Amino acid sequence: MTEAADNARYPLPGLEDLPADIRERIEYVNEKSGFIPNVFMMLARRPNEFRAFFDYHDAVMENESGLTKAEKEMIVVATSAANDCQYCVIAHGAILRIRARDPYVADQVAVNYRKADITEPRKAMLEFALKLATDPGNVGDSDIEALKSFGYSDEDVWDIGAITALFALSNRMANLTGMRPNPEFYAMGRQDL
Amino acid sequence: MTEAADNARYPLPGLEDLPADIRERIEYVNEKSGFIPNVFMMLARRPNEFRAFFDYHDAVMENESGLTKAEKEMIVVATSAANDCQYCVIAHGAILRIRARDPYVADQVAVNYRKADITEPRKAMLEFALKLATDPGNVGDSDIEALKSFGYSDEDVWDIGAITALFALSNRMANLTGMRPNPEFYAMGRQDL
Amino acid sequence: MTEAADNARYPLPGLEDLPADIRERIEYVNEKSGFIPNVFMMLARRPNEFRAFFDYHDAVMENESGLTKAEKEMIVVATSAANDCQYCVIAHGAILRIRARDPYVADQVAVNYRKADITEPRKAMLEFALKLATDPGNVGDSDIEALKSFGYSDEDVWDIGAITALFALSNRMANLTGMRPNPEFYAMGRQDL
Amino acid sequence: MTEAADNARYPLPGLEDLPADIRERIEYVNEKSGFIPNVFMMLARRPNEFRAFFDYHDAVMENESGLTKAEKEMIVVATSAANDCQYCVIAHGAILRIRARDPYVADQVAVNYRKADITEPRKAMLEFALKLATDPGNVGDSDIEALKSFGYSDEDVWDIGAITALFALSNRMANLTGMRPNPEFYAMGRQDL
Amino acid sequence: MTEAADNARYPLPGLEDLPADIRERIEYVNEKSGFIPNVFMMLARRPNEFRAFFDYHDAVMENESGLTKAEKEMIVVATSAANDCQYCVIAHGAILRIRARDPYVADQVAVNYRKADITEPRKAMLEFALKLATDPGNVGDSDIEALKSFGYSDEDVWDIGAITALFALSNRMANLTGMRPNPEFYAMGRQDL
Amino acid sequence: MTEAADNARYPLPGLEDLPADIRERIEYVNEKSGFIPNVFMMLARRPNEFRAFFDYHDAVMENESGLTKAEKEMIVVATSAANDCQYCVIAHGAILRIRARDPYVADQVAVNYRKADITEPRKAMLEFALKLATDPGNVGDSDIEALKSFGYSDEDVWDIGAITALFALSNRMANLTGMRPNPEFYAMGRQDL
Repeated sequence: MTEAADNARYPLPGLEDLPADIRERIEYVNEKSGFIPNVFMMLARRPNEFRAFFDYHDAVMENESGLTKAEKEMIVVATSAANDCQYCVIAHGAILRIRARDPYVADQVAVNYRKADITEPRKAMLEFALKLATDPGNVGDSDIEALKSFGYSDEDVWDIGAITALFALSNRMANLTGMRPNPEFYAMGRQDL
Repeated sequence: MTEAADNARYPLPGLEDLPADIRERIEYVNEKSGFIPNVFMMLARRPNEFRAFFDYHDAVMENESGLTKAEKEMIVVATSAANDCQYCVIAHGAILRIRARDPYVADQVAVNYRKADITEPRKAMLEFALKLATDPGNVGDSDIEALKSFGYSDEDVWDIGAITALFALSNRMANLTGMRPNPEFYAMGRQDL
Repeated sequence: MTEAADNARYPLPGLEDLPADIRERIEYVNEKSGFIPNVFMMLARRPNEFRAFFDYHDAVMENESGLTKAEKEMIVVATSAANDCQYCVIAHGAILRIRARDPYVADQVAVNYRKADITEPRKAMLEFALKLATDPGNVGDSDIEALKSFGYSDEDVWDIGAITALFALSNRMANLTGMRPNPEFYAMGRQDL
Repeated sequence: MTEAADNARYPLPGLEDLPADIRERIEYVNEKSGFIPNVFMMLARRPNEFRAFFDYHDAVMENESGLTKAEKEMIVVATSAANDCQYCVIAHGAILRIRARDPYVADQVAVNYRKADITEPRKAMLEFALKLATDPGNVGDSDIEALKSFGYSDEDVWDIGAITALFALSNRMANLTGMRPNPEFYAMGRQDL
Repeated sequence: MTEAADNARYPLPGLEDLPADIRERIEYVNEKSGFIPNVFMMLARRPNEFRAFFDYHDAVMENESGLTKAEKEMIVVATSAANDCQYCVIAHGAILRIRARDPYVADQVAVNYRKADITEPRKAMLEFALKLATDPGNVGDSDIEALKSFGYSDEDVWDIGAITALFALSNRMANLTGMRPNPEFYAMGRQDL
Repeated sequence: MTEAADNARYPLPGLEDLPADIRERIEYVNEKSGFIPNVFMMLARRPNEFRAFFDYHDAVMENESGLTKAEKEMIVVATSAANDCQYCVIAHGAILRIRARDPYVADQVAVNYRKADITEPRKAMLEFALKLATDPGNVGDSDIEALKSFGYSDEDVWDIGAITALFALSNRMANLTGMRPNPEFYAMGRQDL
C-alpha cells in the first residue's frame, strides 16, 4: 500500500498508527474500492486536517443538490486540470467515468471542456467553475447571471463554487505533498469500451 | 448584524435559526470580538460546510507549529491579496496587525511583500506561498529545498502549504458569495499609531 | 526625516543641498502635512525630474476637471495596486480616505474595486483605468464608448487616462528606487472610525 | 466513418472522392489501425495541405533520431496539452502508451510532466519543449545549454524543437476545425492494466 | 551568403552539398530575389523538412483563396510579432509592403494591428488569427461566427487558420535555430516613400 | 499637418491657438525635422501636460548620462513594443536608427532584443527595462545587482528606469488618444541601405 506513494514528499503513516475513526474510514474505503487512494494515507499524517477535509468533501460532494454526481465530478476534473493536479485529474477522472457511465467524457473534460460531448448548460457550469478557479477576483454578478440563465438556482451556483473552492485547496495539497495517483485509477470505468 | 453584509449575494440566516453548536461558536466569537465577522453568518447558511471550514481553520491556524501566529496571518494576507479577496485581506490584515503588534506590516504585505519590513526567511515563506497560490502545478522540489534552506522543517513547509490551500478555498467562497468585510476590521490594530 | 527611507536603494539628499525652488516646495508640504512624504526627497536627487514630475502631477491632479479629487485618488490607488506599488497604494490610500471622507473605500479599492462600495460609473472608470494600466495596447474605441456611456466626457476620459499614465510612471520609479511609505500615511483618514 | 467527426466544423470528404495517393495512405492506415483517425479525413479536404502535413510528420516523427519514438510522443502529448488540443492529447496519448509500453505515462504527462514517472533528462526535454511551445520568443542560448547538459546533441535539440513546432501547427488546425478524437483512441494501450 | 546567418545556432550547409531539387528551388529564389533568404539555407540542413515546409507554404500561401496575398502576409506579420519572431516579422514585413504596395502597413501591423490603417474586416481577420496563435484552446464557434459576419466564407476561415498554424511552426523553428533576417529585407518595399 | 493624425481620437488644436512657448517649441522642431511629430500637436491640447511631458523628456533623454543616446532610444523602442505602442515604436525606431547610425537595430529590438545585434550589456539593460515595464512589482535587488554586474552605475540604473517609466506614461497616452506615427518616420535613417 505504501509503495503506491513512492515519489511522495512526505512519508506515509502506518495504518495501525492512526486514530480509530480515521482507520475505520480508510478501511471502509479499502473494502469498497479494493485499494486505498493515496489521498487518504497522505492526509492521515495530520488527523485533524484529514477529518476536516473529508467532512468538507462530504458536505459538498454528498449533499442534496441540484447537480448530479457526474456533474460534480466534471467540475473537479476540469478545475484540477487547470491547476495541473495529476492526482485529482486521474483519480476523479476515474470517478467521473463511473458516475457518468461514460468512458470518454473525463479525458475530454480534462483537456478542453469546450470540445467535450456535454450539454451547453454543463459547458456554462464549467466555464464558471474555471473562472472561479483561475481568476477568482474577477467573478462578478454578470457571470452569475449568465450561469443562472441556463437554469441553475442560487444553491446550484453555491454548489458549483464550493466544489471549485474545495478542489482549489485539494489541488494545492496534492501538488505540495507530491501525491501520486494509484495505478488502479487509470483504467477504472473504461471497461465499457 | 445582517446590515453589514448588505451587498452579499446570498441572504444571511437569522442567528436563532442556526443549529446550537454553530450558534454557540458564533456567540462566543461575538463576545470575544464585539462583533460577528461576516464569514461566520455567510457560511452558517450551510451548517456542514461551516463546521468543516472552521475545523480546517483550527487545524491549520491553531495547531502546534513552527510558525508563529503572525507568520500564519502574513501567509493569509499575501495569498488573499493575490486572489483579490477583499474580505480576507481586510479581515486578516486586522488580525495580522494584532498578532504581530505592528500597525504597518499588513498593508505592506497586502501590496508587495518584497518591500515589506520583514526578515528574509519570511520573504522566502511568502514567495513559496504565493507560488503555490497562483501557479500550483509548477511547485517543485527545488522550491521546497529553497524554502528549507532558510531553516524551515518539512512540517513547517506543510503548514505554509496548508494555510495557502485553505485560503485558496476561502478566497473563492468569499468572491463567490460577495462576502464583505465588517467595518470594525479596518481600524483594528492601528491604535499604536 | 531621512530615517523614514531607510530601505531605499538610493541615498537621499540633504534638504539644505537642494535648489531653492525644490526646497521651498518641500518645506511647504512639510508645513501643510507635518512630514515630508518620501517621494519628495527621493525625486529631489534629480532636480529636473523632480520639477517635471510635480508639474505633471499638478497638471492632472489639480486641474479643472469633471472628476472629483476623490475619484482621481481612486484611480491612483487601483492602478498602483495593479502595479504592486507599496508607496503609492499606502500614500494615496491615505489621501483617498481624506478626499472621500470615507475610512473604508481606499482599502476596498486597493484589493478589488469590483467589490467596493462605489457607484457603477466609478467602477466603469476604474475598469477602464486598469485596462490602460495593464494592457494598454488593447484599449480600443469600444472601451472608450463604454466609458462614455456612463456620462463621462471626452475630457474626462483624457483625465482618467492621464492619471493612469502618470502613475504608470510613478509606480515604476517607486519600485525602481525602493521608495517606502512614511509611517504617517497608514493611519491618516481613519479617525472617523 | 464520417460519424466519428460529427461535431467537426467542416464536412468530411468521401473517401472515394479523394486523389489516389491520399486514398491509398488512408486505406493503409485503416488496415494497420482498424480505423481511420479523424485527422486524416479532415485534412484530406485539402489534398496539398494533407500531403505537406504528413510529409512533415514523417520527416520529424519517423526520421533517424537520437530520440526514441516514445520520447517523441511525450513531446507531442505535453505540448498539445499546453495548447488544450483534445484530439492530439487523446490520439497521441494512445500512441505514447503503445510506444512506451506503459499504461500510465500518457495521462501523467498530459496533466503535469513534472510529476510523471520519467527520467530527469526527459523532464528537461519536456521543459524545453513547453517553453518553445508557449513562450517561443524567450528561448535562449541558456535554455539550449541547459538541455544539452543532459546529454542531448545539437540534432536532438532540433528534433525536440521541430516536433514541438509541428504540433504547434497541428494543435491549431485541430482547434480550428473542431477535430474530435476517434473513440478507439481512449482505451488503446491500456490493456496491460 | 553564409555570412548573413552569422549568429545562427546551426552551421549552414554549402549550396553544392544539397540535393538537386532543393538546390534548384534555392537557385530560383536567388535569381528572382537577388539573394537567398536565410530560412532556405537553414531548413536545407534537413532536406525532408525543407520539402515539407515549402510544400506547406505553397499550399496555404499560393493556393486559390478568397484572401489576397497582402491579407495573407498581414496574418504572417501579426502572428509572428505575437511570437516575437524577428526573422518572420522582418522578412514577411518586406513581402507585405510589396504585396500591399504600401510602405506603412507592415510596421503598423507588427506593433498593433488595432491602430493600423486597414479595414474593419481585416482587423477582424487579424483578431481571429491572433487568438488562434496565442490561445488556441479558447477558439470557439462564436469566434468563427464573428469572423464570418464580416463576409468571410468557411474556406476563408480555414485559410486564415492554416496560415496562422504554419507560422506557429515557422516562428518556433526560427526562434529555435536563431534564424536571422537578411539585411536586404529591411528596406524592401519602402522605395515609394 | 492635421491630416497626419486623421484617426486620432481627439481633434488637434491649430498651431496659432497655442500659447507662445508651446508654439515656439513646435516651430523649432518643425524647422529641425521638416515636420511636426504628432505627439507635439496631440499633447498641445493640454498646455500644462505638454510642458511637463517635454520637461520630463529632456530631463531623462537629454541629461548628462552614462548611457549613449542610442542606448536610450533602444530602451524606448523595446519597452514601447512591449506596450504595443505604434506611435512610439515607429517614431523612436526612426530616432534610434539615426542615433545608432544603424539601419537594422531598431526593427530587431522592436521584435525581439534577445536576437538583436547588440552587446551583452545592452541586452542586460533591455532585459531590466522590460521587467520594469511589464512586471514592476517584481523588480528586486537581485535584478539591480545583475544589471550592475555589466558595469552600470547606480545613476545608470536610475536612467534606465526613468526612461522606462516615462515611456510607460507616453505609451499609455498614445494608446489612449489614438496617436499615429507621421509618415516621415517610417523611412528615416534607412538611407544607408
